[in-house]
Amino acid sequence: MRFRLTPADTTFYDLFAKSASVLVEGANLLADLLVIDSDKTATARLMKDAEHRADEATHEIIRRVNSTFVTPFDREDIYRLAAGLDDVMDYMEAAVDMISLYGLDVLPEGTEQQVEVLQRAAQLTAEAMPRLRSMRDLDEYWIEINRLENLGDQTHRQMLAKLFSGAYDALTVLKLKDVIEQLELAIDAFEKVANTVEQIAVKES
Amino acid sequence: MRFRLTPADTTFYDLFAKSASVLVEGANLLADLLVIDSDKTATARLMKDAEHRADEATHEIIRRVNSTFVTPFDREDIYRLAAGLDDVMDYMEAAVDMISLYGLDVLPEGTEQQVEVLQRAAQLTAEAMPRLRSMRDLDEYWIEINRLENLGDQTHRQMLAKLFSGAYDALTVLKLKDVIEQLELAIDAFEKVANTVEQIAVKES
Amino acid sequence: MRFRLTPADTTFYDLFAKSASVLVEGANLLADLLVIDSDKTATARLMKDAEHRADEATHEIIRRVNSTFVTPFDREDIYRLAAGLDDVMDYMEAAVDMISLYGLDVLPEGTEQQVEVLQRAAQLTAEAMPRLRSMRDLDEYWIEINRLENLGDQTHRQMLAKLFSGAYDALTVLKLKDVIEQLELAIDAFEKVANTVEQIAVKES
Repeated sequence: MRFRLTPADTTFYDLFAKSASVLVEGANLLADLLVIDSDKTATARLMKDAEHRADEATHEIIRRVNSTFVTPFDREDIYRLAAGLDDVMDYMEAAVDMISLYGLDVLPEGTEQQVEVLQRAAQLTAEAMPRLRSMRDLDEYWIEINRLENLGDQTHRQMLAKLFSGAYDALTVLKLKDVIEQLELAIDAFEKVANTVEQIAVKES
Repeated sequence: MRFRLTPADTTFYDLFAKSASVLVEGANLLADLLVIDSDKTATARLMKDAEHRADEATHEIIRRVNSTFVTPFDREDIYRLAAGLDDVMDYMEAAVDMISLYGLDVLPEGTEQQVEVLQRAAQLTAEAMPRLRSMRDLDEYWIEINRLENLGDQTHRQMLAKLFSGAYDALTVLKLKDVIEQLELAIDAFEKVANTVEQIAVKES
Repeated sequence: MRFRLTPADTTFYDLFAKSASVLVEGANLLADLLVIDSDKTATARLMKDAEHRADEATHEIIRRVNSTFVTPFDREDIYRLAAGLDDVMDYMEAAVDMISLYGLDVLPEGTEQQVEVLQRAAQLTAEAMPRLRSMRDLDEYWIEINRLENLGDQTHRQMLAKLFSGAYDALTVLKLKDVIEQLELAIDAFEKVANTVEQIAVKES
């Protein structure tokens, strides 16, 4: 329970919302990539561009933390939240980059589920950011993210079991394993963002 | 050096002790799994159950942090400690789940040592939790956990060297590598818990 | 914006500088290892010794945090910075250890670039530590570390694509993948150190 001078700079909420909205774009680009005969080069270029804008959003938050006297919550939590959102994008971009670098045409069964989890998590995160202002109705957000992370985890393990079942040669297994691991890490990174939000709420309560 | 209102809610120590005691159970279940002709399905079910109780213990801590005015140490440290204990269980459960999903009957030489390290680390952690109250005699705990982590690390690397020596086909190597990595991550997670305890002690000193 | 009693114990800056200087040594030892017909056993021994001194430097920082009333910045940031520097050394030592344990004579193309990035990052970090005193001119340090980390990331992914291209058998791929992953993790750990420095600067600004 802390008392602060008010009003705190409220543009932080807008910046977090903006940062999270780029993640919605990124997850949608991943979904585009799974469409058969999609233009993978064009999607990869759009993903690079989205990652670039995510970086800029992150740096705008850091710069503002530096130049603002009163922040709506702890400076280090603002920093951690911005960095956490950035991590999600990095993993999603890495997955797209690897698909292109490794020359993968077909992704294993289960990838759609992973991407659906990412789309849903991105949507929920983007919707939750403006609620940081009131610190209300955030429970449902992190409970659902935790559920999605569990689901993603199960999907990922079952995909690994299939990859290791002998249907693919070893090098193909290694390539596909790398890609689905980045997707799994992106889902985990959404959970870390939700945990950061939970910690902020715990401190402010 | 901070001054606090007293008495702080002391049930936190009990909750951490409870959470750590579930890790002792989990490590013992891992040891059961290594016994030849053990009932792996039954053990996996007990492990799922233990993980579920670990989750509940974690959430009980978080709920209490939310509803308690004066906490025995920083809210975020309580949060980090609870999350750290939970991580250990997640990695141990993942190892058991993968053994079952990948249909592994035999684990590589060295797995026993990894599990022994986990049992010892779980025991030490469970014994250390009540000492958070006095913040005394914790040095020996984190020094020993660090020693165990080093030992686990060496064991893990030697196991990898053996896995890569040509005695197994590539897919079997990938499966076994995944399992022993989860055990290594569980050991690392015990070290992170010990580091968190050390940081708490540093702040309170 | 916080006000502190002065003077804070300034030996922390010296200790961080000492810790970072061991990383310069470690990165140079990695470079030695890449020289054809170098004495790999001797280099591995020197690396073990450097890791040992890095551990001691870390513990000296922790001990001093414990016994110092006024610290130049938050105790937990001192702790995090010390731990971050230690992580870099652990990954570099792991790479050397694996090269020896796996009996690798030749490392893949790109390893030189990874090691050059590590040498440059170590140098920059060692030069930045004394500037923590004034908190000035640190921007260029973390911007350059971020650039190096991006470069290292690209190098790493391109190396993976080559490893997976069919030029190596699966077990060799697994061994080399492990080694270049440790180098990538060491580069990432330098970035985490830079992020910690940035966060400290944000808080103190």
